[in-house]
Formats: sequence, structure tokens, C-alpha cells
Amino acid sequence: MNAPGSGATIADLPLRENLRGKSPYGAPQLQVPVQLNTNENPHPPSAALIADVAESVRQAAAELHRYPDRDARALRQDLAAYVSKQTGIAVTEANLWAANGSNEILQQLLQAFGGPGRTALGFTPSYSMHPIISTGTQTLWIESPRRADFSLDVDAAVLAISEHQPDVVFVTSPNNPTGHSIPLAGLRQIVDAAPGIVVVDEAYGEFSAVPSAVGLIDEHPSKLVVSRTMSKAFAFAGGRLGYLVAAPAMVEAMLLVRLPYHLSVVTQAAARAALRHADETLASVHHLAAERDRVAAALAAWGFDVVPSDANFILFGSFRDSAASWQRYLDHGVLLRDVGIPGHLRATIGLDAENDAFLEASKKLAASELVTGSTPREGTS
Amino acid sequence: MNAPGSGATIADLPLRENLRGKSPYGAPQLQVPVQLNTNENPHPPSAALIADVAESVRQAAAELHRYPDRDARALRQDLAAYVSKQTGIAVTEANLWAANGSNEILQQLLQAFGGPGRTALGFTPSYSMHPIISTGTQTLWIESPRRADFSLDVDAAVLAISEHQPDVVFVTSPNNPTGHSIPLAGLRQIVDAAPGIVVVDEAYGEFSAVPSAVGLIDEHPSKLVVSRTMSKAFAFAGGRLGYLVAAPAMVEAMLLVRLPYHLSVVTQAAARAALRHADETLASVHHLAAERDRVAAALAAWGFDVVPSDANFILFGSFRDSAASWQRYLDHGVLLRDVGIPGHLRATIGLDAENDAFLEASKKLAASELVTGSTPREGTS
Repeated sequence: MNAPGSGATIADLPLRENLRGKSPYGAPQLQVPVQLNTNENPHPPSAALIADVAESVRQAAAELHRYPDRDARALRQDLAAYVSKQTGIAVTEANLWAANGSNEILQQLLQAFGGPGRTALGFTPSYSMHPIISTGTQTLWIESPRRADFSLDVDAAVLAISEHQPDVVFVTSPNNPTGHSIPLAGLRQIVDAAPGIVVVDEAYGEFSAVPSAVGLIDEHPSKLVVSRTMSKAFAFAGGRLGYLVAAPAMVEAMLLVRLPYHLSVVTQAAARAALRHADETLASVHHLAAERDRVAAALAAWGFDVVPSDANFILFGSFRDSAASWQRYLDHGVLLRDVGIPGHLRATIGLDAENDAFLEASKKLAASELVTGSTPREGTS
Repeated sequence: MNAPGSGATIADLPLRENLRGKSPYGAPQLQVPVQLNTNENPHPPSAALIADVAESVRQAAAELHRYPDRDARALRQDLAAYVSKQTGIAVTEANLWAANGSNEILQQLLQAFGGPGRTALGFTPSYSMHPIISTGTQTLWIESPRRADFSLDVDAAVLAISEHQPDVVFVTSPNNPTGHSIPLAGLRQIVDAAPGIVVVDEAYGEFSAVPSAVGLIDEHPSKLVVSRTMSKAFAFAGGRLGYLVAAPAMVEAMLLVRLPYHLSVVTQAAARAALRHADETLASVHHLAAERDRVAAALAAWGFDVVPSDANFILFGSFRDSAASWQRYLDHGVLLRDVGIPGHLRATIGLDAENDAFLEASKKLAASELVTGSTPREGTS
């Protein structure tokens, strides 16, 4: 059947000029044996968690005809308890705000503190949604480069901030897609230099041994926001629950820009169930960190250039042609992420067997794919 | 315990100037015996629907650690089947787009077709989120008044459109909070006059006997968008599922502005379950329409001024002081909505007993609350 209106193409629409010719964001969603492209926790939810989610949703569903609690207070209480325990910093419901994934959190922050006539600064390469959401909210995006080894030069960052005076600064820690974390001392320098707000994106915070920026909120209540997510370590990417931790006044600001009733009763119930199983879910984090170190060592031994990572992924190279190598891995049944950094690809740490498959493909490809000058050594794993 | 950062107030934050001093949107969420303030379907989900939602979520939860289908294809297929049946116009998945409530749909439309330097026009009084989301996306909001009786004067609308040349026109049909629908002939005139897109907000479409604007998509593929929701007739307000029906190119435009993975696996699964029970859920719609007519007749008989409604709510007056009368109803345990139209309040049609309670309170209040000149007649119900 023909869809009504098929006669028009997107070029016929009165679209905003800056969207013309653009393509939708997103990694290819391919069905491949070994999917190591979106930094999910590879461990499926336990039977107990699944049962708890289903039962919680069953109870919540009795009120599906009614709008949800617009301010998600019970969920924010549970998140506060989790953050307090995980970071060691006692926070309350008043410090927490939640949305449909951390992307929506970032969008709300930019609606309140960015927007037309305002600027956002990030240290690149970093999470690619920061510029996309900035542009989507009409915030001028400015980037300042990291060092050649992808670590953050705090002095250069402070200089860039004083030069550009951005309204919003993004610091990703650990940084995606490169893996470095930033210590609190460096963060403090950045926050001190910033004239506006600083968003510390801790999407991968649970994987890192560096203390959370949540500990700096009380020092910098009108500037510091920590954004986090249940999509990564928490194994809840499908549930779409992002949150921020900040001073209560920051949470009040979010109430001014959030769409009313943005979080469904189902999402609130499912997330609360998942939080009840936090200890069990996060038990996999240590193992994933150990696997990351095993994979990194093996890759290095075969001549790959491995960027040190504090997260659940590894950026590595140096490929002669990373797009071609991405396809070569796919031919071996391994889906990686081409993050647009020349010569590099990003691999999520998966289950042990997935990591073995990835390493096996890497060993085969090392000889043909790497730039001349890489020195293959004997494998150690 | 003190929340970290409590030292700062919202006045200390580097908020956008246009947000300073604003208050969050939203009806009071009060626990009151008779809640007739947010136009929900008062009938709770059936036991079968609840069981189906829980079982669907249980199955989906096994993949909670993975990101959802970014394009929600299965859900869009199910929505297409429902819309085809409900409107009598055959549409396909390519015509459908879904988001977390129709508010998110409207925000995505304004991101693509509105924004800085662009304008949106609505015919007021109408849905209060249209100006709020326009402003939130930095789209200049323009309003053109309805007739004194709140019906839409199509010739005046066409004139306002040719004068202001808006990039986005909102037409709410049936109109919230007044209740009138607009026939297709009038809509056609509006779409013909519009230089940009026309969003027909059919949030209450299932209650209306007027044909859906979905039937005009094939005539006006590059202009017409119909936004709808599962929050009202569909008794799924807690599930947060809004959608649009439009030409496939319009759906492609949404892919350029949507946050990736905006719809969780849980939301997709729960909405699909609810759609499987559409016949059963919508069986209440006829009864609610009959109740609406009963309530309207009784109010009119007691001297209230009742605006004719094609939806599941009634706008009525004329109160000497509508804010005071709103409180008077609350004192009687009945929560209505003060929509900001002087002399008027809006009542959602509830369960029979809730409507009885509302009428009982109205009968008592008619003598003291109405403007002089209203003529109480003998009650008929």
C-alpha cells in the first residue's frame, strides 16, 4: 500500500535551513553476533530484576489512565539514595532530576542555560551529542581540542574558557570515546574559570576510580551540574533513564523547561525496580574493568595503539583507513564504532566470549590494517 | 539532612533572561475525591489490559541492557493500524511518528519548522502548551482570537494567516479548553492559506464525530501534520505516548531533531499492549459523550452558560470570580481546572458518580457564584 502523502519529499518541506541536507544521528542498528558499538553493559538483567520490573509495572498499570507524578518524587528519592551510596556524598531528592535518558537532561540544561545568543564549549573529541543537542537548542557550539593523546590539558581548558566565556561548559569524565577521567583538582580549576555552568557528564562514572564531581556541588552550587545515566554500567539502556545531580536551585530551573509529565508511570516504576537491584547489577562493573585491561594489553601486544581507558570501552588504532577496518571487523561478525577520529575505532567491552571474538579478529587484522611503523609484538594473551 | 548546594537560590543561577521569575507549568496535583481537571478518561484499565502490559514489559525487560529500536518501527506499525481503523483513512508506518506524549511531538515539530526567527500562530483560547512549547523552542508566538463564543471564525483565521505569514499554525480540534471541532472544509481553507505547516492537534479526536484531518494529508503532504495522543480517550495518560500522522517526508524530518533512543523499550511495549485493547478501551467513549450531554443539559438548566463541546470536557460559566468558584468546588471535593478564561471553569467528564457529585456541587453553587443576569431555571436531572 502507498502511504498517503508519499508525493512529497523532505526537500519540499518548509524545514529550518540549518536542517536541510542533514542526516539523522545514530550508530547503525545491525544484527551482528558480537555488538560492541554502543557501550552498553553486556550482562542481561537477572531473572529477579526482570520479575521485579514486571510486577512493578503491573501495579503501576492500574493507574495508566491517570497522568504520572509530574515531579517523579519517589524515583528521585531512590536515585538520591543510590547516588549517595555510589559516590559517598550524601544527597537528597532535592538534588536529583530525572528524564528520558541523559540526552533529555542535556537538552533541558541547554534550554535553561544555553539557547540563542549563548554558547557551549566542549573539549573534543568527546560525546558527539553535546554539539548536536547544543545546535538543536540553537546554542552556538565551540570546541577546544584535547592533547594529541586525547587527555585533557586543564591549563589549555582554562585558557579556552577565559577566551570564549561560554555559558555552558561540557566536561565528560570518563571521556567518551577516549576513556580518560579528570581528577577533582582539575575540575575545580575549570569550574573556577567558567562564567556560566559546567556540566560534568559522568555517563561512565561507575567504571571510574576517580571521585565523582558530585563532591563539588556544595562548593559550586550555582555552577556545577553532574549528569549521569542508567544506560551504561547500570544495564538499563532500554529503560531510558538519565538524571542530574546538582544544587536544589538547578533542579528548580529544570522545572521551568521540562515538558510536563515527561516521565511515564511505567518508566518511573521500571527505573525504581532497577535501582532496587543496583548491587547485583553493578557487580559486573569490576569484571568489565578487568576485561578491559585484558583486552587493552592484548591489543597493545599486537601493535595496536591503545588509549588508556577508565571506562567500559577502548579507543584504539592506528588504522590506515578506519572506515575500511570497521567494515573488516563487521565481516568478522564484530560491530565496532567508527567515532570519526581518523585512524581509530572504539570497542565496547562485552562478555568474555565477545571480547575473545573481538581479540581474535584483531589479531588477524593487525598485520593488514595498521599504519606502517606499528610494531607487532608477540601476543601475551 | 541538608541538600548539598542549598545555599544557592534560582536567582543566583545564570539562567536565560526570559526564564527569570517564571513558574513551572502545570495543574495542581491534589488528592481530591472527584478529580475532573486534566481531561483523562476516568475508566481504569481492564484487568486484561493490565495483565497484557505487565507480560509485554516482562518480555521486553530481558533486553533492558540494550538500547531500544530507535525508530520504534513495530509500535508505529501498530499505531498505523489503529489510526487506519479509527479514522477510516488507510495509513502506514511511514506516516507515523511517536514520542513521549504529544508535548514531545509538538516540541520536535517546532524544532524542525519553528525556532529563532520563525513564528507560530494559534487561535486562542486553546491548548496552553502551544505557546509554552513555542517559546521554549524560541519560536515567536502569535495569537489570533476566536469568536466571543469560542468558535473558530475561519475567514478571520485565514486573514490572520495572510497577515502574519506564520511558519507553523496550530489548530486544535476539538479545541481544548472550549470543545468545538472544525470541519474539514474550514481546515482546508486554513491549510491553503498557510505558507508553512499546519499542525492539527486532535488530542480529543476520538470523542468527535467530525472526520479526522488525517484525510487531508494526501492533499497537503508538505504542509499538514495531525498530532494525536493516547492520553485522553485512550486512557493511557500515565504511559506518555503521543504521535503524529503525516506524509512520510514529515516523519523523516522528525528523525533529524529527535533525541536518539527517545522512546524506551518499556514505553514501546506498554503502548503496543494498550493498542491491542483499543476496542475495549474506546468502548467508554460513547458513554462519556452521553454523560457530557447529560451534564451540559443539567448545568444549562441551572443557569450556567455552557459552551457546546465535542470532547470529554465542558467549559462553563459565567462565574463572578472564577478563581474563587474554583476554590468553592474544591471545598466540595471537586477539582476543576481554572484555564484562565475569565468567568469560566473547565470540567472533565468523569465516571457517572463523579459527574453526579460535580452536578450536586454545581446546583448548590449556582445561586451564589454566577454573574447577575444568569437565570436559574428548574433542574431537569
